[in-house]
Amino acid sequence: MNRRAFQWTHRVTYAECTLGNHVYYARYLDILEAARGEFFRSLGQPFLRWQNEEVLLPVIEARIRYRKAARYDDVLTIELVVTELGRVRVAFGGRMLDESGESIIEATTVHACTGLDEKPRRLPDALREALQPFVTAPEESK
Amino acid sequence: MNRRAFQWTHRVTYAECTLGNHVYYARYLDILEAARGEFFRSLGQPFLRWQNEEVLLPVIEARIRYRKAARYDDVLTIELVVTELGRVRVAFGGRMLDESGESIIEATTVHACTGLDEKPRRLPDALREALQPFVTAPEESK
Amino acid sequence: MNRRAFQWTHRVTYAECTLGNHVYYARYLDILEAARGEFFRSLGQPFLRWQNEEVLLPVIEARIRYRKAARYDDVLTIELVVTELGRVRVAFGGRMLDESGESIIEATTVHACTGLDEKPRRLPDALREALQPFVTAPEESK
Amino acid sequence: MNRRAFQWTHRVTYAECTLGNHVYYARYLDILEAARGEFFRSLGQPFLRWQNEEVLLPVIEARIRYRKAARYDDVLTIELVVTELGRVRVAFGGRMLDESGESIIEATTVHACTGLDEKPRRLPDALREALQPFVTAPEESK
Repeated sequence: MNRRAFQWTHRVTYAECTLGNHVYYARYLDILEAARGEFFRSLGQPFLRWQNEEVLLPVIEARIRYRKAARYDDVLTIELVVTELGRVRVAFGGRMLDESGESIIEATTVHACTGLDEKPRRLPDALREALQPFVTAPEESK
Repeated sequence: MNRRAFQWTHRVTYAECTLGNHVYYARYLDILEAARGEFFRSLGQPFLRWQNEEVLLPVIEARIRYRKAARYDDVLTIELVVTELGRVRVAFGGRMLDESGESIIEATTVHACTGLDEKPRRLPDALREALQPFVTAPEESK
Repeated sequence: MNRRAFQWTHRVTYAECTLGNHVYYARYLDILEAARGEFFRSLGQPFLRWQNEEVLLPVIEARIRYRKAARYDDVLTIELVVTELGRVRVAFGGRMLDESGESIIEATTVHACTGLDEKPRRLPDALREALQPFVTAPEESK
Repeated sequence: MNRRAFQWTHRVTYAECTLGNHVYYARYLDILEAARGEFFRSLGQPFLRWQNEEVLLPVIEARIRYRKAARYDDVLTIELVVTELGRVRVAFGGRMLDESGESIIEATTVHACTGLDEKPRRLPDALREALQPFVTAPEESK
């Protein structure tokens, strides 16, 4: 009800497509990464600055459902919410919609907070607070 | 016990890596696709020939667990089994191991058999028969 | 003096970077393609509509000079001009600048106008006229 | 006459293709990088070991002529020769042939030897000696 989602748009390029005129299945993950980057920037501190503070968020799990093919030159709307916000783990639920509002993909990426040494560490409080307004129960993200 | 897995190896390139010297999370899906291509070739009929017979197998779902980062120049062993073999759906379980035998990723890709019109169609019998020896209960693929 | 350049900006993602924190040398061509797509859209008719009229512009030659590494999260400004506008051939000169105005790459892509059969055909007059204001002598594009 | 070329083969994947069933123009550079990696390995010391000795060879210039489209599942033969072997600079001439022996692309990549600080340094003598047998006058590489 109070759910907030971060929104971002992306125009599909030839580089992202494969035979049969649709986006190659792995490229959606590239687009999701770009959207997460803009999400974090919108929260006030881009990934790069967290990285400089030795906070990394590598993906430990990804799940994608492909609903409908996106085509060259389509404008996709990417919506991101937070589906899990633990001490070390954070998960983002995402979906991409085409211009008619139909779902292209639904995806979840689960991240672990680590240091530059790739060992787990607690999510910084400032990051947790910034993400809190976007937390959504998983069932709502469907 | 009678489980059969298709095996293939891949050498990690700079193109596949990102900052921090590890394979970018989406590139594992590119590598899995290349491995599936070789799996099908080993079964006697490459994807290209199925495509010429108007049989496509687009991915409708993908799930990946990232266990350990693969690095530039690592040689990865990809193992593929069949975890689901329905009338229209087929799923492949895959894992990648590094040279020390440690698991890099575990992944499942679920595919729907379609025609060139992107509408569902039955998996051809010849394909089903070729895949049958590789069918593994999902729990065994872990 | 009367030179016009199309300008577009792009934010560097992890997907585009490789070891050592710089954009992988091939990814600049992906970014140039996205910029050309926006250039054509700004001229009134996106590539997709030319394609629907059976006009393609495949790249027949590309030359890139790498001046300085672009890094993750950098905002690149891409400038495109037309350096050749023949009956069948068209070439685009491009350069990417970082936020301090320093040159990241300079590039030329040469394209041949073809039909869907991949055979050469004349550039449509409407396309030639739209590109004319951006024609720059090659030496000026340096 | 005494020309030696390094040869390597590559099978085209869906990930490398775009609309119209041909390899996307930037992906040939990914394939060339993989081939250079194998070339260096064949000389006795892979890039990774040079990198560990603080010797990098970033690309400072790339030129590609696209002759014919490579398609999904094509097997490409990549041939590499050395077209320049200076104190700091080294250039590789490459071409890709399809199974009928027709030229797909011809390419040159120019590299500068640098340290991890990205500053120029002399090519190590051992590397120069290993590359010497592959030196070809540029006109011969056509």
